[in-house]
Amino acid sequence: MLDVALLGTGGMMPLPNRFLTSLLCRYKGNLFLIDCGEGTQVTLKMLGWGFKNIGVICITHYHADHISGLPGMLLTIGNSGRTQELTIIGPKGLETVFRGLMTIAPELPFEVRLIELGESTENIFISDDLYISAVKAEHTINCFSYCINIRRKGKFDVEKACRLNIPKELWSVLQNEKEVIFENNVYTPQMVLGNERKGIKVCYCTDSRPFSGIVDFVRNADLFICEGMYGEDEKLDKAIEHKHMLFSEAGKIAAESDVSELWLTHFSPALKEPEEFSEFIKKIFPNTVIGYDRINKSILFDN
Amino acid sequence: MLDVALLGTGGMMPLPNRFLTSLLCRYKGNLFLIDCGEGTQVTLKMLGWGFKNIGVICITHYHADHISGLPGMLLTIGNSGRTQELTIIGPKGLETVFRGLMTIAPELPFEVRLIELGESTENIFISDDLYISAVKAEHTINCFSYCINIRRKGKFDVEKACRLNIPKELWSVLQNEKEVIFENNVYTPQMVLGNERKGIKVCYCTDSRPFSGIVDFVRNADLFICEGMYGEDEKLDKAIEHKHMLFSEAGKIAAESDVSELWLTHFSPALKEPEEFSEFIKKIFPNTVIGYDRINKSILFDN
Repeated sequence: MLDVALLGTGGMMPLPNRFLTSLLCRYKGNLFLIDCGEGTQVTLKMLGWGFKNIGVICITHYHADHISGLPGMLLTIGNSGRTQELTIIGPKGLETVFRGLMTIAPELPFEVRLIELGESTENIFISDDLYISAVKAEHTINCFSYCINIRRKGKFDVEKACRLNIPKELWSVLQNEKEVIFENNVYTPQMVLGNERKGIKVCYCTDSRPFSGIVDFVRNADLFICEGMYGEDEKLDKAIEHKHMLFSEAGKIAAESDVSELWLTHFSPALKEPEEFSEFIKKIFPNTVIGYDRINKSILFDN
Repeated sequence: MLDVALLGTGGMMPLPNRFLTSLLCRYKGNLFLIDCGEGTQVTLKMLGWGFKNIGVICITHYHADHISGLPGMLLTIGNSGRTQELTIIGPKGLETVFRGLMTIAPELPFEVRLIELGESTENIFISDDLYISAVKAEHTINCFSYCINIRRKGKFDVEKACRLNIPKELWSVLQNEKEVIFENNVYTPQMVLGNERKGIKVCYCTDSRPFSGIVDFVRNADLFICEGMYGEDEKLDKAIEHKHMLFSEAGKIAAESDVSELWLTHFSPALKEPEEFSEFIKKIFPNTVIGYDRINKSILFDN
């Protein structure tokens, strides 16, 4: 099970009734944050999932509305008692930006590991069963879209394990996909595990124009969280100029990539009532939700 | 008239129901901001005094809760249409901190002038009738307290001007405290202006222990805004350790310095209901207000 919460839905600047766009995922008690604008720690406090277990923070790009909350967030994570290392992932320049921001928060009670993304799609394994993939988007500055991927290994075949006389004390090791040598016999996970099953995939794309490769990148996601800066198709010129997306463009990507659900976010401050475009966007992709602050759900494995 | 608004009253971290401590003053349409933590632009948006006329930002010290909102604030000021120069005043190191933070907001439509404070009390003249004074406070890092001072020149003595046969077309020049030579005669403001009258003085002190010189610095202020990190006197050890103040310590400074009114602010996140200490503090200094977000008032000149 993966828990997902959209902490905010605003773009450009935080507003009294709308926090900046940021995604929080929770898996096996660990928290993964994507983007951290001004106020992200406040909406997370309201959500109530805690700060201590934030182990990974991904940053899409270095515009203030996506990263200005980082120093305060790291201090609050520190105040919550975290001492374990924390990883920050972002485009090239992360080291410079991080050092710059940390002039106002120079001391943290944990180590920070920085991972700078290269030019092509990358998979970063956080644990055996969770990896984060990143692909270059198309914005006014270097920007990445992310997917959180949960792998689900094959089913343990008890019948086969018995038939092969595999000692019971080795079952849990094999179940954890580890090979083991026991009394001169080699036992491999393949002997007892079925094929990898469908996992969970959640994708997050902002700020960007629709870019070549995005459909493949988000294909079959259980949840696609995508920017919708402008509701009206008439704002295409503006979207192209500022390298953002229309609601309808996000909807088309969702339809083409066969995702299960689309959440729209990163609304322009001028877009007061994004809900007004609900019917319009559902004609393009029916399972669209107009995002709102702290909307959240749990995504379960298929049986 | 000087309008004053306390934008937030929190210390350490922004909370869902409490913004970080920050003061906004308005004089003749110009805005002066002291401190700019995470979320200050949001509470200012709620107050509704606008962004474009912020011409001076003073920073007490470089802990995140007093400055992390600066990049977002400057961008929002830029988006509001400001093109005039903006001045930022702060302790030594301002240049480094500013450059560090601005890695995420590299382009602004106005020039920024940085004024680094030295070691002793300084007066910075913003205009003929407004100056900001700064004095070194006592915190865990280099930190300053500020006063906004409005000067009020003497009354124009019409009778005397007539008696001295001063040409009427020169009156407004002299009223503006400028000397003028006209038809070979020298006319000075002293000829027609009375003694300087009592102006307006608003002081802002956070984060600090009570320090030598603070009583003189805030003496006779119309409004003294002071931190009260802890309500209970039993927290003195904690206050000394973290270099903050108790409510009672702020109250004693207010009483000794004969200020007209005290607003308490910068409450510890653990202090959920600062109002509970209202009776207690009023025994020390009767005209104390327990600050709350966006409390504001207009301070008029005495007649």
